[in-house]
Amino acid sequence: MLIVMRAHATDEEIQRVCDAIKAMNLTPHAIPGAERTAIGITGNRGEIDVGVLEDLPGVVEAIPVSKPYKLVSREIKPENSIISVGQTTIGGKSLAVVAGPCAVESYDQAMTIAERVKKSGATLFRGGAYKPRTSPYTFQGHGVEGLKILAKVREKFDLPIVTEAIDEESLAAVDEYADMIQIGARNMQNFSLLKRAGRAKKPVLLKRGMSATLDEFLMAAEYIMSEGNYRVVLCERGVRTFADHTRNTLDLSVVPAVQRLSHLPILVDPSHGTGRRDKIRPLSRAAVAAGADGLLIEVHHQPDHALSDGAQSIYPEEFDRLMLEIRQIASVVDRVVN
Amino acid sequence: MLIVMRAHATDEEIQRVCDAIKAMNLTPHAIPGAERTAIGITGNRGEIDVGVLEDLPGVVEAIPVSKPYKLVSREIKPENSIISVGQTTIGGKSLAVVAGPCAVESYDQAMTIAERVKKSGATLFRGGAYKPRTSPYTFQGHGVEGLKILAKVREKFDLPIVTEAIDEESLAAVDEYADMIQIGARNMQNFSLLKRAGRAKKPVLLKRGMSATLDEFLMAAEYIMSEGNYRVVLCERGVRTFADHTRNTLDLSVVPAVQRLSHLPILVDPSHGTGRRDKIRPLSRAAVAAGADGLLIEVHHQPDHALSDGAQSIYPEEFDRLMLEIRQIASVVDRVVN
Amino acid sequence: MLIVMRAHATDEEIQRVCDAIKAMNLTPHAIPGAERTAIGITGNRGEIDVGVLEDLPGVVEAIPVSKPYKLVSREIKPENSIISVGQTTIGGKSLAVVAGPCAVESYDQAMTIAERVKKSGATLFRGGAYKPRTSPYTFQGHGVEGLKILAKVREKFDLPIVTEAIDEESLAAVDEYADMIQIGARNMQNFSLLKRAGRAKKPVLLKRGMSATLDEFLMAAEYIMSEGNYRVVLCERGVRTFADHTRNTLDLSVVPAVQRLSHLPILVDPSHGTGRRDKIRPLSRAAVAAGADGLLIEVHHQPDHALSDGAQSIYPEEFDRLMLEIRQIASVVDRVVN
Amino acid sequence: MLIVMRAHATDEEIQRVCDAIKAMNLTPHAIPGAERTAIGITGNRGEIDVGVLEDLPGVVEAIPVSKPYKLVSREIKPENSIISVGQTTIGGKSLAVVAGPCAVESYDQAMTIAERVKKSGATLFRGGAYKPRTSPYTFQGHGVEGLKILAKVREKFDLPIVTEAIDEESLAAVDEYADMIQIGARNMQNFSLLKRAGRAKKPVLLKRGMSATLDEFLMAAEYIMSEGNYRVVLCERGVRTFADHTRNTLDLSVVPAVQRLSHLPILVDPSHGTGRRDKIRPLSRAAVAAGADGLLIEVHHQPDHALSDGAQSIYPEEFDRLMLEIRQIASVVDRVVN
Repeated sequence: MLIVMRAHATDEEIQRVCDAIKAMNLTPHAIPGAERTAIGITGNRGEIDVGVLEDLPGVVEAIPVSKPYKLVSREIKPENSIISVGQTTIGGKSLAVVAGPCAVESYDQAMTIAERVKKSGATLFRGGAYKPRTSPYTFQGHGVEGLKILAKVREKFDLPIVTEAIDEESLAAVDEYADMIQIGARNMQNFSLLKRAGRAKKPVLLKRGMSATLDEFLMAAEYIMSEGNYRVVLCERGVRTFADHTRNTLDLSVVPAVQRLSHLPILVDPSHGTGRRDKIRPLSRAAVAAGADGLLIEVHHQPDHALSDGAQSIYPEEFDRLMLEIRQIASVVDRVVN
Repeated sequence: MLIVMRAHATDEEIQRVCDAIKAMNLTPHAIPGAERTAIGITGNRGEIDVGVLEDLPGVVEAIPVSKPYKLVSREIKPENSIISVGQTTIGGKSLAVVAGPCAVESYDQAMTIAERVKKSGATLFRGGAYKPRTSPYTFQGHGVEGLKILAKVREKFDLPIVTEAIDEESLAAVDEYADMIQIGARNMQNFSLLKRAGRAKKPVLLKRGMSATLDEFLMAAEYIMSEGNYRVVLCERGVRTFADHTRNTLDLSVVPAVQRLSHLPILVDPSHGTGRRDKIRPLSRAAVAAGADGLLIEVHHQPDHALSDGAQSIYPEEFDRLMLEIRQIASVVDRVVN
Repeated sequence: MLIVMRAHATDEEIQRVCDAIKAMNLTPHAIPGAERTAIGITGNRGEIDVGVLEDLPGVVEAIPVSKPYKLVSREIKPENSIISVGQTTIGGKSLAVVAGPCAVESYDQAMTIAERVKKSGATLFRGGAYKPRTSPYTFQGHGVEGLKILAKVREKFDLPIVTEAIDEESLAAVDEYADMIQIGARNMQNFSLLKRAGRAKKPVLLKRGMSATLDEFLMAAEYIMSEGNYRVVLCERGVRTFADHTRNTLDLSVVPAVQRLSHLPILVDPSHGTGRRDKIRPLSRAAVAAGADGLLIEVHHQPDHALSDGAQSIYPEEFDRLMLEIRQIASVVDRVVN
Repeated sequence: MLIVMRAHATDEEIQRVCDAIKAMNLTPHAIPGAERTAIGITGNRGEIDVGVLEDLPGVVEAIPVSKPYKLVSREIKPENSIISVGQTTIGGKSLAVVAGPCAVESYDQAMTIAERVKKSGATLFRGGAYKPRTSPYTFQGHGVEGLKILAKVREKFDLPIVTEAIDEESLAAVDEYADMIQIGARNMQNFSLLKRAGRAKKPVLLKRGMSATLDEFLMAAEYIMSEGNYRVVLCERGVRTFADHTRNTLDLSVVPAVQRLSHLPILVDPSHGTGRRDKIRPLSRAAVAAGADGLLIEVHHQPDHALSDGAQSIYPEEFDRLMLEIRQIASVVDRVVN
């Protein structure tokens, strides 16, 4: 934390701030400048709230300096983490391609789509059994029945399963049936659920909240890791802005930003990130070119009849085409596609 | 939903869209214009996703028209709802003033602050026993011990208690000990928790999510009401924007906007909404002047030693002054202060 | 500027950053902490770009510290500025109420509205002669003819005139005919126009840009003042966010934020700030309660026939009612209304 | 425009809205639904403001339907526009790569950088002679002297010149000396300047404003075209959001969104879009992969000594590497690099 004093703050004012810092068991470091003095603070181990110093006479501003995360940080672990999920991995040289429908609708639907995406090169299968929906009156997912269908997909097509958990109960079920537990954007700061995921056996796919800063995103991962589960994969899925030509604004710059600060892998979800079918392929290519560790793509063979999010699902034929495209782009960023 | 066709779309294209609408068991209404045709859709009872129509040839855009909420809507219940909380009410002529510390830190702290705010005219007491914190390494609240202290505050000062629940377990405890269950901004779309709150015995204070649109905010209330708990009070607490002079941007225009669409009361929380002590009093006055049904204010007698959010708590003396000010403003908007 | 080093940065890395700072003719101040070192920089008189230091090995982040504005700052001039506009003032104990139509449509329209708002207590008259419109195909204002009508309004009703300039040519005309030159939100960073306004004879009303931070807003005022025109009044008119229930999101917290940092007066424009007639009165009351130095309100006697922005104009009757309301609220914040 | 009535609006209310629409010389089309009636409006040739209808009894909402742009629209001109700039083109199969320093600092600096970027394959040269700076106290560009240097760069290296105009005067000079006139983000809604650019001889590079919606962006282009200059190229350069890990948030989804609605080419500027050197290469690759018609890249051989924006300029070596990368990616999207 750095305390910036007004130009011409008096010595008494500066002294008073230093005394207040010491009273918090921290150490002040006054830096006299040409126009004004700034006071650095060291010794802050946790997240002590020094914002109160802003009210002292002569203070202009309190600027936070240290980052509060530890386990997610590249400072702690300089090399990239490679996360095992079932028999595959996320974060290494191979791009992860997680594909499947928004929701598991039926055994036939899941099998049909799984067969197609497997053939095209998907490395994991996705499909919602528990759906967080804005309206209580819309389809909420098939629950455990959906999970059982997903388990059969894994068995038949040898595809590890990623599916969302929305509360303690569903998390326990997902931890049992699936290979990776997804925490959705709306639950990114559901700290009880994060802690519970931190005690799960399976790795966690953590989606960025709709208005989460990079720090908050990394702190959410820190919550999971602080409970002992170090297998966390991040996922950018668009943030909320004024722009109205897509459902969310996909923030691809967060990919290199995460990679600078953290050792965790990061995927990109252009289906939710744009919410429009005709934007998915261009933004998927872009995500790979930006250096993402993989993609999450909604694929449906009959999007017009999908029970949810049909408008942001691509057809299997378009997914094939996308796989061809990212295969070529991958080599530019020193990656390979299955 | 309204489907906008390109200028000079062919009759075949228009017909094809109409056919697709009928295939969804909905009714198309073509509206030929000077330049282009638009096609209205009726018969949509739930939230059927017609976004897929955007992909048909000749379609420019699909524009959602109907609002999906029902129970929260003023169309269902034209008169204002007045919600009983303990022996007081929220939503009537009297302004609700919910005051207290960010977190319950100790018996003495809670009692000291409660005595002060009661004397100044607060009508409910707030204080966190379960704290959703960005970092796993900071103070997370005293849990049930905190709730027991709050129960003693009620007993001694005759102040109904509002406190946050962050998961199923804490919700059950809050439902037992407190008078009103707060659902925080980070959990506004934790639909499992909303449903659980909908089955609670106590009324619910629902805070707006950091990037929630008005529709999403009302739909979150709809979740609670759809489970049978009609005693819901909304609360604006600032949204996330690019502006960096306050922690969040307090959106007071949501007060008249909610009042136009819904019969539910709405409070304003300028403590979280600004995050800065010197902005709380001006924005509290503004909230009352804008027509809010009440305020949530963090008050602490020793903010420099608060375990959380000290920088956004005001001193009891400033709270006294605020009460005097809003008492005068209340009369302008046909309200009274206790 | 403060340079934050990685935890465990080597002495060589720290030294290299210090050397780079010295090479820029600035002075480094290393602050060793428990986990990491931070390096303060002093001697930066202008706005030297030290962001390049972020690329040096061992550097985590470069955090800007000093504020670049001078003339607008309360550090330079601690007491509030009171700006003379015609025979009235803005920034003193009396609230400024600037009222009138969005655009000057005709002599009769301007006179009709001016008579009404004068009677209700408006202290200045507004009306656009040059309209910045999103579409080139919509009404762009009557230009000099409009200015001449405005001059007659002043003559007849003794109301100083505020009207917008959109380029050098219109600024010269406004400077001649009106009493105050408005720079609109879209031109807040049209630096050539700001400099030109800085050389004008009349005071300037500077509206906040749609996505301007507080610093950028104050720097735009600094541009005007740096050319010698110290008579600047700021105006909040809503910022662009994801929220869609109003046209913009009115950010009332900027009022106390400006007042903390600057000596310049600040008005609030709830007409543009909300874009919806039924939100104008609540937000106008709120602005006064928050401590604003006055209001800008669009009033039209026939909003259904207005050539622009009819939906955000209030009727004269509603303006009367608003004046009664703010008269009472003004006394709470130690102000008076004409 | 579509008017949505309340559920159970009375026949009188519906009739009254229809009458009001007719009074505006427009045609109402009532669409009775299961729950509520919606009323379509046709006959609106300009941008008539029907927002006033929202105030009529029984009305819930007025939803805009038609897009106001014409000349920029793909409905008017289905095939892509290819814009000639000097002896090169933008918008065809070849990617445009506009490279050069933020500002022209000296003859030697410009020549040194131009030689390097020409050799690496840049197709146009950029460099600011007129710099819009947030602070009036920082380097504002060398003006006409800078333009003369740029003209020499063209002569020597056969590179067409793109440079920014910030007002009428500089626009005339840029129109004389350069090959393409850049209108910066801060001037995207400086409508006087847009109209002036519409009367210029040279093509225009129009950057997206920091908080411009897609519609506003296209309408700004419409302003230029409506004056007769059809040679307009768009440029995404990041928008303002809450995210703080980059200076702006680069919105790559706008590339396919523009391409869907308009025939105009669109470039991407990752230098301003991210503001951080280590993000430029990843986002440049992403922009090409997303289908952009080219890139704007700041290159400087001595960024630590740049007079502006050093932190967002890449070294010539990194530019070489970037050219190699995009050459490979271009083929995936059916493009070529010089």
